[in-house]
Amino acid sequence: MSQRVLTLEYANEKLMIIDQTLLPNKEKYIEIKTKEELWDAIHKLKVRGAPAIGVSVAYGIYVVTRDISDDIFIEEFKKIKAYLETARPTAVNLFWALERMDSVFEKNKNKSIAEIKKLLLKEAINIDMEDKNACQKMGEYGLELLKPNMGILTHCNAGSLATAGIGTCLAPIYLGEEQGYNFKMYSDETRPLLQGARLTTFELNKAGIDVTLLCDNMAATVMSKGKIDAVVVGCDRMAANGDGANKIGTLGVAILAKAFNIPFYMFVPTSTIDLNTKNGDEIRIEERNKNEISEMWYEKPMAPSGVKAFNPAFDVTKAEYITAIVTEKGIIRPPFSENIRRILNGAN
Amino acid sequence: MSQRVLTLEYANEKLMIIDQTLLPNKEKYIEIKTKEELWDAIHKLKVRGAPAIGVSVAYGIYVVTRDISDDIFIEEFKKIKAYLETARPTAVNLFWALERMDSVFEKNKNKSIAEIKKLLLKEAINIDMEDKNACQKMGEYGLELLKPNMGILTHCNAGSLATAGIGTCLAPIYLGEEQGYNFKMYSDETRPLLQGARLTTFELNKAGIDVTLLCDNMAATVMSKGKIDAVVVGCDRMAANGDGANKIGTLGVAILAKAFNIPFYMFVPTSTIDLNTKNGDEIRIEERNKNEISEMWYEKPMAPSGVKAFNPAFDVTKAEYITAIVTEKGIIRPPFSENIRRILNGAN
Repeated sequence: MSQRVLTLEYANEKLMIIDQTLLPNKEKYIEIKTKEELWDAIHKLKVRGAPAIGVSVAYGIYVVTRDISDDIFIEEFKKIKAYLETARPTAVNLFWALERMDSVFEKNKNKSIAEIKKLLLKEAINIDMEDKNACQKMGEYGLELLKPNMGILTHCNAGSLATAGIGTCLAPIYLGEEQGYNFKMYSDETRPLLQGARLTTFELNKAGIDVTLLCDNMAATVMSKGKIDAVVVGCDRMAANGDGANKIGTLGVAILAKAFNIPFYMFVPTSTIDLNTKNGDEIRIEERNKNEISEMWYEKPMAPSGVKAFNPAFDVTKAEYITAIVTEKGIIRPPFSENIRRILNGAN
Repeated sequence: MSQRVLTLEYANEKLMIIDQTLLPNKEKYIEIKTKEELWDAIHKLKVRGAPAIGVSVAYGIYVVTRDISDDIFIEEFKKIKAYLETARPTAVNLFWALERMDSVFEKNKNKSIAEIKKLLLKEAINIDMEDKNACQKMGEYGLELLKPNMGILTHCNAGSLATAGIGTCLAPIYLGEEQGYNFKMYSDETRPLLQGARLTTFELNKAGIDVTLLCDNMAATVMSKGKIDAVVVGCDRMAANGDGANKIGTLGVAILAKAFNIPFYMFVPTSTIDLNTKNGDEIRIEERNKNEISEMWYEKPMAPSGVKAFNPAFDVTKAEYITAIVTEKGIIRPPFSENIRRILNGAN
């Protein structure tokens, strides 16, 4: 029996999320009841992926504030919002979703607290639905680029576990599967944090989709054997010229794809495109703790103590390596600078 | 205090090897006294790297047979040789070194067993010295290709731990260091078995050479930042046209180097070149157990149980991606098919 993993759900007045730190060894859902639990879930990456963080914190701030009495509600809400913003300082969707929830007050100043609480839930549901719709749309547009029986490589996890919906770059894979496309998926393990091994193979396996795990350094040999017909990846931030930052290793995959004449598709919700960033050189790349490379996951250190290590969390894929950008508003082809502006302005 | 790691040593009538399975956490030398200990050391990769295996087994078969009485010596020697050949069925240097030791009998049929035992030790010392010399020569030729202060990327371990000498592709790094070249080394961790993290950073660190550990998928971003001036790698088997099989991931590094106009140098003892293999397509690539990817090194499985994984141990770098081949007989430039034959025939 195949099924899609549910990343998070608000139902029967409860917010449940799957604890992604336990995957793939344990599938455990936890209920978020307090602001501390919500902060902890985001901070410890129990929920991760920009869209999934946004939806979780929207429902979450509603849930953890709904029982606060009317006289102190607004004051407490603002305090809790500020507290939650500290859970993961670099997660843009965290701030964005909290701002959207906060703006409910501005728009409804004359309404009662009881009324505002209802509107907060409604806004969280909106954010959730918008994410699900964006995933669905990216899936439909993405599927136009793919053909049955293709071998498709992905890097990191931009699947349903990163969103409230069917994912960004894996969305067309799920839609194609429903239509009998019979894709052969290849998943880079994605060092150092192994999102490909832990999450992507987990969710594709569960959905009954054929998937083969690779070490990152095996992509070239699999491509050279003609097994890959397309590469699909997500995006963390895209500049106005089409340069896209994504999980470390994406740049290498893009260069290899070009060398083997394999199309490289980046899936980018329009909220991820920043027109104020001219090009990839302006995107600041987070460097993380070197222990993630030399020690994390292992029983004992796998490198000499004190060895230097470089651990950038992301890299920037130059626009020249991207065949097409898939957004929820349509497919963007080069020249990207021009066509990104057009699609953001509503023309398709 | 910097120093070079000693991989193995025959001194005071004892054969000592460093147990590489314990590196980098423990530096422990073990003495090889019995045929079982020798078989085990090779089988369990306590000694690894084609040249190091060859030298170890040459000294080793001498050591474990030297006390056998004259009347049964030849018979026992042949039995032990056959037994040792089963230690690692794919290690070409294992057979090669054992054949060389065995041929001592053919060449000295009229001599006494006592005399032959002396000649066996002499042949082992020859094999050891030839390896040390080849390393030294590759270091000298390789250094002609490098300049002071270069940033140099390597993949896997083709250093002193893989040989009885100063390594193949790391040989010029050691020679350059003695001359104050001040290289900045970058070492891919080399999944799945982490030879880069465990062995290359260990031996370079110990020698006081500046080295930074990278996950394999970070090479592209380091190259894009202009930090890499040359790539040096070893080779497990080279075809007559210059296609070279080496540790999985080498092909990807070569393609990236070409995309960034970085010279890519493959270090290839001439014993590794097989003129009977026309091109890389004829090189059979060993596929290893998928658990090396999904479970090995980890406290718990890092991929869902039952997930498929592809685990080739090597890949083939097409000659077109290789800037120059460094052998102990000199540097080979394209056109490789022609120039490889010339150097193997003694013309330089």
